[in-house]
Amino acid sequence: MRYSYLSHIECPKCGATYDAAAVQTLCTCGAPLLSVYDLDALRRDMPDPTSLRGRDHSLWRYHELLPVQSENGVVSLGESVTPLLPLPRMGEAIGVPGLLLKDEGLLPTGSFKARGAAVGVSRARELGARELAMPTNGNAGSAWAAYAARAGLGIHIVLPKTAPALPRNECLMTGADLYLVDGLISDAGRIVGRAVQQRGWFDASTLKEPYRIEGKKTMGLEIYEALGWQVPDVILYPTGGGVGLIGIHKALRELQAIGWLGGKSPRLVSVQASGCAPIVRAYEERREESSFWPDSETLAFGINVPKALGDFLVLRAVYDTDGCAVAVDDEEILQEQELVGRLEGTYVCPEGAATLAAARKLRERGWIGAGETVVAINTGSGVKYLEAVRKEPRRLVAVDGELDAD
Amino acid sequence: MRYSYLSHIECPKCGATYDAAAVQTLCTCGAPLLSVYDLDALRRDMPDPTSLRGRDHSLWRYHELLPVQSENGVVSLGESVTPLLPLPRMGEAIGVPGLLLKDEGLLPTGSFKARGAAVGVSRARELGARELAMPTNGNAGSAWAAYAARAGLGIHIVLPKTAPALPRNECLMTGADLYLVDGLISDAGRIVGRAVQQRGWFDASTLKEPYRIEGKKTMGLEIYEALGWQVPDVILYPTGGGVGLIGIHKALRELQAIGWLGGKSPRLVSVQASGCAPIVRAYEERREESSFWPDSETLAFGINVPKALGDFLVLRAVYDTDGCAVAVDDEEILQEQELVGRLEGTYVCPEGAATLAAARKLRERGWIGAGETVVAINTGSGVKYLEAVRKEPRRLVAVDGELDAD
Repeated sequence: MRYSYLSHIECPKCGATYDAAAVQTLCTCGAPLLSVYDLDALRRDMPDPTSLRGRDHSLWRYHELLPVQSENGVVSLGESVTPLLPLPRMGEAIGVPGLLLKDEGLLPTGSFKARGAAVGVSRARELGARELAMPTNGNAGSAWAAYAARAGLGIHIVLPKTAPALPRNECLMTGADLYLVDGLISDAGRIVGRAVQQRGWFDASTLKEPYRIEGKKTMGLEIYEALGWQVPDVILYPTGGGVGLIGIHKALRELQAIGWLGGKSPRLVSVQASGCAPIVRAYEERREESSFWPDSETLAFGINVPKALGDFLVLRAVYDTDGCAVAVDDEEILQEQELVGRLEGTYVCPEGAATLAAARKLRERGWIGAGETVVAINTGSGVKYLEAVRKEPRRLVAVDGELDAD
Repeated sequence: MRYSYLSHIECPKCGATYDAAAVQTLCTCGAPLLSVYDLDALRRDMPDPTSLRGRDHSLWRYHELLPVQSENGVVSLGESVTPLLPLPRMGEAIGVPGLLLKDEGLLPTGSFKARGAAVGVSRARELGARELAMPTNGNAGSAWAAYAARAGLGIHIVLPKTAPALPRNECLMTGADLYLVDGLISDAGRIVGRAVQQRGWFDASTLKEPYRIEGKKTMGLEIYEALGWQVPDVILYPTGGGVGLIGIHKALRELQAIGWLGGKSPRLVSVQASGCAPIVRAYEERREESSFWPDSETLAFGINVPKALGDFLVLRAVYDTDGCAVAVDDEEILQEQELVGRLEGTYVCPEGAATLAAARKLRERGWIGAGETVVAINTGSGVKYLEAVRKEPRRLVAVDGELDAD
């Protein structure tokens, strides 16, 4: 029994293969690279999931399907399996009684970015990296800064100066070398690109290393395990870069290959904001890649990505599972955020609220059936997005006032 | 096998007993009440902890030692067992290589208050409560508002208008009926006191119902289980109301009574801020109760409690375990917060940082030995306390700038 069954690295576009023991970035064809595991061997060695019993309740319980080569290589901040919460009242409100929320806000640094960072940083250190570099708009930077510090690695992060103060402060608190740029994340990305070439740093930009997606994949593994190794009917994912959706799809096919899941697929739904919906447009036109979305705008900062490097993989996952792509308005996002907070006590992030708005919309269209099991992914804690609160508390005029005073 | 082994309610001061099946507030003598379990029966029915294997990885795994009477009564937002993280670099920095951090920031609503709220709200609903009321300075209100919403109960929260905006907004987002008062939390408490009498609401103020502490107790249960049913040498707890410390002590004695732990106690340390240290002063004078601390002030808002209702229980826990009480300055708190973030990637709250400052101080004094296992409790996510960040990022002058530009 090996700790990891990682075999090699492969290009999902042109099929070129690469050595997993060396640092790899993009394929020579320009596409992001994916990790390939020795699934035949794993199927023989672990014919069913009972071997997981008694393991740590963290994403590392799936280490055979992760790229880190030994337990010593694991960099952890306590990334426990996140809950899959039934939302009965919210489900009733939108006509989907089988609604479940995968609450990723309970991970270290308060977002699902911790998954990619935990696995990505662990693997980068294992491959000999000492200094990482990346551009970010927010939560990814927070997560990578935290895990880099935990790993004892240096990290250089470039952030647009218009990005929210919260992730900036998080990066500073965990000791990242942080730069603000007078420009967009694309400008930040160009600076990082030059710097990694000049200085030999490890490029931790989204999908420019193949391991972040392996961490995100564990969202799928956890969902399938929580349902007793069954798949739900539908999984709704708020799509910026789309790494999580690609990972959930990859996890599905890997588990089917080793025989832990049957042939049924969940229909994967890519949810975007109306102000930045390149995947939705491509889906509606049945294209295989998206086009750059100019002047993108949405309050859901995490899904404001006008053209994702892995767009073709997102679309492939959607088509392959008979899923779809759907856009929702910012106003709908805010309404569902308030509603789910009030009905269920969960304060989701705008991106998470977008999946709830999409569930309502798809149910109204009949695309989601009344009896289906639907998983909505809340990618981060609502606590990190306080600007969105639009209510005002009542105010007591005097300390002697009654509770219903104005 | 019963789901809960709750037997009755008892006053830890005068010994009076009360019916656990009815709503109870304070003892007629004015002291807070504690839950008593049928530990003899539990010892017979569960002679060792192996029965816990395979249970949910949440605080509800200890349901026999919790007051909720059936699984149907459980109100949950996914309060997973929190990690007990080794902090090797920080431990080396302060001379305590066996330093562990219990990271409570990974609970729903981002703080340990979720434990008390999960159990307190569940039990309140089970006892027939429909409307809760409480004063709060912050995180407790966030947690109780969230769990009340999850339970389908109404909640009325009174908050000083000087309290931070974050918990206020959290309460609003989960639908609490929220009032701001021109005064202190004591003024808020008086308004709540009148309202619960006039309207028959359930008084959820700290220690005015006996079940919140049972939720906090699970911190101790989780620490002991994570260490393989051994106790650490020292547990450091940031002490405002002190409910968690009382709970950790109560858990210890209950586990010893049922035979899951041996006779050794961890030395319990009550950590306070120099600007609000009533427990420390009482400890130094070897008194059994604290005196009101006038003009209290500390940036660690959660431990700014000038006189706690359960102070005598905190002091009893400290004396009973050969523990101590120690105060740290705000400046020390900020320094440790920065240091642990940089060295370990964990962004703790100021109250959590206070326990690290205390560990350093007690090690310097020789009170903590170099080889001891020391658990510091980080009561909440640092993300909720961003004002404390004092660093500034470097700024790139132009998008063409190099990474080391100023």
